[in-house]
Amino acid sequence: MIEVTRKMKSDSYKMASLSIETRNNILKNVREALIKNQQDIFEANKTDMENAEKNNIADSVKKRLKFDEHKLSDVTNGIQQLISLPDPINKIVFQRELDENLILKRISCPIGVIGIIFEARPDALVQISSLCIKSGNCAVLKGGKETANTNKALFNIIYKTAVESGAPEGCMFQAEGHSEIDELLACSKSVDLIIPRGSNQFVQYIMNNTKIPVMGHADGICHTYIDGSADADKACKIIIDAKTQYTAACNSTETLLIDRNFGTDNLRKVAEALSDSNVKLRGNKEVSDILGCEQMGDDEYNTEYLDMIISVKLVNGVDEAVAHINNYGSHHTDCIITENMDNAEKFLNLVDSAGVYLNCSTRFADGFRYGFGAEVGISTSKIHARGPVGLEGLTTYKYKLYGNGHIVDDYSTGRKNFNFKDL
Amino acid sequence: MIEVTRKMKSDSYKMASLSIETRNNILKNVREALIKNQQDIFEANKTDMENAEKNNIADSVKKRLKFDEHKLSDVTNGIQQLISLPDPINKIVFQRELDENLILKRISCPIGVIGIIFEARPDALVQISSLCIKSGNCAVLKGGKETANTNKALFNIIYKTAVESGAPEGCMFQAEGHSEIDELLACSKSVDLIIPRGSNQFVQYIMNNTKIPVMGHADGICHTYIDGSADADKACKIIIDAKTQYTAACNSTETLLIDRNFGTDNLRKVAEALSDSNVKLRGNKEVSDILGCEQMGDDEYNTEYLDMIISVKLVNGVDEAVAHINNYGSHHTDCIITENMDNAEKFLNLVDSAGVYLNCSTRFADGFRYGFGAEVGISTSKIHARGPVGLEGLTTYKYKLYGNGHIVDDYSTGRKNFNFKDL
Repeated sequence: MIEVTRKMKSDSYKMASLSIETRNNILKNVREALIKNQQDIFEANKTDMENAEKNNIADSVKKRLKFDEHKLSDVTNGIQQLISLPDPINKIVFQRELDENLILKRISCPIGVIGIIFEARPDALVQISSLCIKSGNCAVLKGGKETANTNKALFNIIYKTAVESGAPEGCMFQAEGHSEIDELLACSKSVDLIIPRGSNQFVQYIMNNTKIPVMGHADGICHTYIDGSADADKACKIIIDAKTQYTAACNSTETLLIDRNFGTDNLRKVAEALSDSNVKLRGNKEVSDILGCEQMGDDEYNTEYLDMIISVKLVNGVDEAVAHINNYGSHHTDCIITENMDNAEKFLNLVDSAGVYLNCSTRFADGFRYGFGAEVGISTSKIHARGPVGLEGLTTYKYKLYGNGHIVDDYSTGRKNFNFKDL
Repeated sequence: MIEVTRKMKSDSYKMASLSIETRNNILKNVREALIKNQQDIFEANKTDMENAEKNNIADSVKKRLKFDEHKLSDVTNGIQQLISLPDPINKIVFQRELDENLILKRISCPIGVIGIIFEARPDALVQISSLCIKSGNCAVLKGGKETANTNKALFNIIYKTAVESGAPEGCMFQAEGHSEIDELLACSKSVDLIIPRGSNQFVQYIMNNTKIPVMGHADGICHTYIDGSADADKACKIIIDAKTQYTAACNSTETLLIDRNFGTDNLRKVAEALSDSNVKLRGNKEVSDILGCEQMGDDEYNTEYLDMIISVKLVNGVDEAVAHINNYGSHHTDCIITENMDNAEKFLNLVDSAGVYLNCSTRFADGFRYGFGAEVGISTSKIHARGPVGLEGLTTYKYKLYGNGHIVDDYSTGRKNFNFKDL
């Protein structure tokens, strides 16, 4: 792995300097090759599905493993959308004349070499590799072992087509063994960024075992807060979507906070709507006394269920809701349901999360739903990328300074003066 | 320290929500208070200078410790400049209609709580704290012990004025004991970012001993490459500034790469110009055979001298120069001297550094010289801030999503379709 990433690092400058025409053309050819070779991919997926059957993999997981015409059309549509997006690199973010003939430009550029470790989902491999191609990054990809055959078929098609269409050899590498993860984490000289996707423990493990910067999130403890002035019907509709639309997702709501001013009748109405949707409620003593639901301790409000279960708590208005979320939450995505716009703005400003929502489901936290085409993951880090990470999160920038013999001494001695002018 | 930063974290949301008028007014009052209380500051600085004298501190360091009318006017001018800069937070970076009445906005916001550990320079304390005030961040400040008295006087004036002018109590804290550094590094729940300034070993120590993200740089191994087509006089002028204008700075050139096509006569001319400026040259066997300078091993080209010494190496054109810099450099700031614009663009595109310069001194890598007003440091990280970090590097962003009962299920079932429109 050290040799692979060292070579990749030295090739990454070639990858970074491919023109946007070349990068888009690679994507176009990859899209066509995937369609042309679909039978090989479906064949490989059949093997993975048979293995899943043998190993008694849960149905919900098998759904993710499956790669059929429908999934193929999703990913090829995604590539088409990516091609149409503007070039995320070589963008002049700002330029400024510092003095006569001394021009400073800030230019977006690829991050370099990215290691991405992701769950058993073949469509993720296609999404991630096409995002890296469009943004001029090299990538080491490690997918879940349950889709090893499908991943291999997909990767071979994508990599072969990319190199034939002008990408440097070694611009992508598929790691297949689990032991290669630790090897990858040790390559801090050649790998610029690690993006882990998967369970809380897995992401924590990655974060604690590498010196390479890690982008992503471990927990997704999302909150929906129903304010005193909320519309009860709207609240029911939103919370049911936020909790049940896809419980295994990191952006599902795990805790429901309700203003005491919302009233006991409305509280019961929301609780009933959740129960009718087969959601199990848990609450501290106050909540459990009112609703007769399972009682939980106050120290359990940082629980991520990823299941049809929700924590409920009563609070005194928006201030207490904000304090609870900033303390117990995971800075991922949190929502206020209210008709009071002052409370709304207060919540949106003070909650310290990558996504702060008004009157809509936390499930919207997703690169596709934000119009990014695709995402490599969702970041709760504040340093660099936050929220769904699309193309832009895969770029950094450099400062280019253009002079003509300019020296600092002229400015520090006062012979010349800076003359800043934004261009 | 845990208690201090926990309280600071909960106050950081108040700090973040101060209006730009309040933040600018705090800066205005801080500026006036510094001028009004200058005698107290100078008195405190006298004590520090006397201690420096007793402890036989080097003259070059004493220069930095000194805080006189001249330094005061520098920092108050800096504050004036900061006041005039636009608000770096609450900026709508982009907004997009996802569908009818579902509006996504990306808004810049403060990072939260920043721990800054800096060298013994009283002006740095003023710069850093005013940058934090303008950007709505809370800060734990720890300066070098040699300026403890001056720092205390400055901090007391700044903090007292800030709170009297509307900043929340506990928005800033000055750590005084050296042991508090390790305590600060352990506060990963409350501190969002550590910015260390100082020696290579010190910054490495910080990076290896905290889970908090660290922004900054350990090494400053900057290169100047003289291309075959360079103008020899221009090259001499630039390299002398880049090496000698302030040798202790991270942006001074440490290695001079010269294209063999530049010619032996021109090489001698540059070497003589450096020797005449009292710079000692070191080179591998080839260089030392030509110039008669001290010989060095090829494995020593990653040396940061911070002194009147420079490493010299001959290369075959821009490709070898780029490969050397990307391998031996520290991704800080590197320059090409050339009259060939194709070589220039190649170098600027392929060198993987925060600053890539054409025909000017590497010493320009500085927040003030970039027109940022001031800087909290220079970052060689690619994740988030790169190069001199001014106001913008002290902010992150959040996504605000405004809906009216919107749920994801409508979109995933196809009842509704996204309708992306940039606003």
